[in-house]
Amino acid sequence: MPELRKDPIIDRWVIISSERAQRPVFLAEESPPTKPAALCPLCEGNEAMTPPELFSIRPDGSPPGGPGWTLRVVPNKFPALRIEGELNKQGIGLYDKMNGVGAHEVIVETPHHGETLTTMSIPRIQDLFMAYRERSLDLFLDKRFKFVMVFKNQGGVAGASLDHSHSQLIALPIVPRRVLEEISGSLAYYRYKDRCVFCDIVNQEAEDNARVVYENEHFIAISPFAARFPFETWVLPKKHEDSFLTSTSGKDYDACADAVSNVLRRHNKVLNAPPYNYMIHTSPVDLVNAAHYHWHIEIIPRLTKMAGFEWGTGFYINPTPPEQATMFLREVEP
Amino acid sequence: MPELRKDPIIDRWVIISSERAQRPVFLAEESPPTKPAALCPLCEGNEAMTPPELFSIRPDGSPPGGPGWTLRVVPNKFPALRIEGELNKQGIGLYDKMNGVGAHEVIVETPHHGETLTTMSIPRIQDLFMAYRERSLDLFLDKRFKFVMVFKNQGGVAGASLDHSHSQLIALPIVPRRVLEEISGSLAYYRYKDRCVFCDIVNQEAEDNARVVYENEHFIAISPFAARFPFETWVLPKKHEDSFLTSTSGKDYDACADAVSNVLRRHNKVLNAPPYNYMIHTSPVDLVNAAHYHWHIEIIPRLTKMAGFEWGTGFYINPTPPEQATMFLREVEP
Repeated sequence: MPELRKDPIIDRWVIISSERAQRPVFLAEESPPTKPAALCPLCEGNEAMTPPELFSIRPDGSPPGGPGWTLRVVPNKFPALRIEGELNKQGIGLYDKMNGVGAHEVIVETPHHGETLTTMSIPRIQDLFMAYRERSLDLFLDKRFKFVMVFKNQGGVAGASLDHSHSQLIALPIVPRRVLEEISGSLAYYRYKDRCVFCDIVNQEAEDNARVVYENEHFIAISPFAARFPFETWVLPKKHEDSFLTSTSGKDYDACADAVSNVLRRHNKVLNAPPYNYMIHTSPVDLVNAAHYHWHIEIIPRLTKMAGFEWGTGFYINPTPPEQATMFLREVEP
Repeated sequence: MPELRKDPIIDRWVIISSERAQRPVFLAEESPPTKPAALCPLCEGNEAMTPPELFSIRPDGSPPGGPGWTLRVVPNKFPALRIEGELNKQGIGLYDKMNGVGAHEVIVETPHHGETLTTMSIPRIQDLFMAYRERSLDLFLDKRFKFVMVFKNQGGVAGASLDHSHSQLIALPIVPRRVLEEISGSLAYYRYKDRCVFCDIVNQEAEDNARVVYENEHFIAISPFAARFPFETWVLPKKHEDSFLTSTSGKDYDACADAVSNVLRRHNKVLNAPPYNYMIHTSPVDLVNAAHYHWHIEIIPRLTKMAGFEWGTGFYINPTPPEQATMFLREVEP
């Protein structure tokens, strides 16, 4: 059973996931070679290689468990957290831990091994976002879970262990530190100014226009003023919305899918199909209709490496000013 | 001139270092090939390839600027921050920034291209720690600086851009977020318990003995209870000391050098000479004789990759329980 352990000095939790344990010699090796499509558990036709599906989109009305799908959600075969059991919190001397209860699912974005989000149509990306919502809402029926993190790792450098295009979600029994920091930071701003800091960012960026990568009627994509990484890009709804799950900006995520697709295609052209991560930042389950919080998607191409300075200070060194990244990204036809 | 910019939502500063700016196509490439010794700016005989030295150890009494040294400190040729100018803080609409004043130095640990800390004698590592102290104390004479971060990146995966064994230090005009979190976390513990949390960790670990990798008279090396990374190892003075700079545990860092060397040699054996980072966590300049803070060195072999989940949540997933890492590390003869 995995464990959640808390650092006794700072409020940082880690998942000690012994079921993913590896011999040190294996850890020290380079990434394992990617599997050919015949052995890929996420390819159409190989449905038996994954745990039974939790959700799928099947335009042909085919039954679950076989081919015919365009999108499929399955439990992670090597989950970081386990779905079974009650939450059990415990102290050991000065340390605190709880058992690793949670959900860890894989959203298979396409039946085809070579397809990526940058070659997929906007309606297919809409489907993907609707699947994120569908699964999140289902998991929130479980009272043990306080937060669902939806994220995507594209490419080995970005942490993907499978080539085949997929996203993941992890439901957690506690609201993670990074989310709490964003919420308390934006609450402090709201108390001082009576305005949402993200709305202020959207307004100032739209007026300034030096860091706007793309916009449509409902969404704006910007290089954030204090970008941690070269070509880091955020996609935000223009109108105030606290939760991805209740977003009404556009119809069924169409404008959001358009904006994310546009940014990813620009990154692809300028950075030559870089490895990347994206994360959906949204309200935790017990924060409803928050005037101070504003959901958004952070997209991080993985071009630089974390090093000692970053680990030690929490500072980041970004060699590409966001204004310059914006210029490069605007120049190309996505 | 580089800039320090603050994220308006959470209290996170970034260094936008346009002098290190690179064309996107270069960023997207793999790491540049390492230079042969003849072209290595850190090798003995190539002293003219670096800025003039700030400090050196020259057992043969040779003059600065030429060969004859065993350790040498030079300004970083491509500094993240610049030493010149007054600190100038400024707002731009809702954003905050300041000019990037600071110091960025390179500590060349050896004149020989192939030598590493794991093949160096303990007295040479003592020299290295004394050089860290020497340079930090010198930089603290400058009233603009509030913190000096000493760190080491070993191997390209760990962020090193040069093969030749070296450490770095960066003097900062603000106390970084990560350091403040540690200080406020340990202060909260102290207020509650009237004890230093690090002293409590040292005591509990010594008694438990499940996570002790190595100890000598003055220092203990442990796999922390909530380790973020496989084989993460911390080296702490056993007796309470708030600052690396005023440490009297052992004589001139001899016991500290012994413990760090021992851990690095164990990592080397078990993990096959892994890339790694280490960082010295110590008090900022304006925190003196703190009863709640305890300096230490964090050593992180770079075996796993940060991915979307970690970026989005601040949680880490560690596939190697620290108790298991300890067993592997204890087994070998360093």
